[in-house]
Amino acid sequence: MDALIIIDMQNGCFATPRLDREGTAERINEISARFRERGLPVFFIRHDGTKENYLFPESKDFAVIDELVRAPSDRFVVKTANSAFYETSLDAELRFLGVSRLFICGLATDFCVNATIHSALMKDYDLAILSDCHTTADRPGLDAKAVIDFHNWLWSELTPTRGAIRVMPLRDALDLV
Amino acid sequence: MDALIIIDMQNGCFATPRLDREGTAERINEISARFRERGLPVFFIRHDGTKENYLFPESKDFAVIDELVRAPSDRFVVKTANSAFYETSLDAELRFLGVSRLFICGLATDFCVNATIHSALMKDYDLAILSDCHTTADRPGLDAKAVIDFHNWLWSELTPTRGAIRVMPLRDALDLV
Repeated sequence: MDALIIIDMQNGCFATPRLDREGTAERINEISARFRERGLPVFFIRHDGTKENYLFPESKDFAVIDELVRAPSDRFVVKTANSAFYETSLDAELRFLGVSRLFICGLATDFCVNATIHSALMKDYDLAILSDCHTTADRPGLDAKAVIDFHNWLWSELTPTRGAIRVMPLRDALDLV
Repeated sequence: MDALIIIDMQNGCFATPRLDREGTAERINEISARFRERGLPVFFIRHDGTKENYLFPESKDFAVIDELVRAPSDRFVVKTANSAFYETSLDAELRFLGVSRLFICGLATDFCVNATIHSALMKDYDLAILSDCHTTADRPGLDAKAVIDFHNWLWSELTPTRGAIRVMPLRDALDLV
């Protein structure tokens, strides 16, 4: 079974300008709508940044951005590290539901998205990474687009574990679900 | 206790030209000598690429490059994925020895070094990443130096788990051990 993992699309994470916020949110809405139509689980991961002194639970910053559609069937997981699997219920929930393939999107490309992908590999999930549904900010010496392009290439070149790794744009992902 | 983790410094990994092979090997020899002087464990990680059709065990490509000094007390771990922790004895050996901090070096910066760092974070190790003792190749749109500089910055900005993360050059690492 497939699950959609939407990482850290929270108000406070956009305090740093992120490349193509609107387009990224629109495309995530398209894939999440498809998951709900099919009765497949949609997970919103939220970062609790208390120990880093930001993204405090119950704050406006902690909330998912208004542009993203939500439904009563959606699930929420709170994390405190870059990986959505670190000391969270995510793996247990996915196993309970019988999920074997994760569709990954959200932010930041180079931090929590990348960390979550590496954890998911260690746990033998199949991965479908949506190449045009994750975003980040400009970094020292690299603009956001270069960071995104680099990671899309990097992930496609990783050594798979027991699962498969595919990196694809939204239009191809919609055909897969 | 500290341990040195030297990742994939194998002949076959240098079939792709890597930035500053000689300098990287010399600096790794300096830190490994310091670990041996202190009686601290030195781990060589080697990639078995059989499923990717390269780096076959027993081949010349599989061997650690001649420039790197070895000693009878060194330990060897064979892996089959990017992370040195995936289906290996590494974590168990480190726990058995009482190791809590890992000094990380080797290659490739963006693949096996990065993946191993992310796994080590999930396992709550303290990390000392040697910023001038890891290397990689030119990538699409980015030269090797840009990839190395980006990752040194990225790692220094990761959210620590239960351990601490420090990124430092060899000369500072030598003072720490």
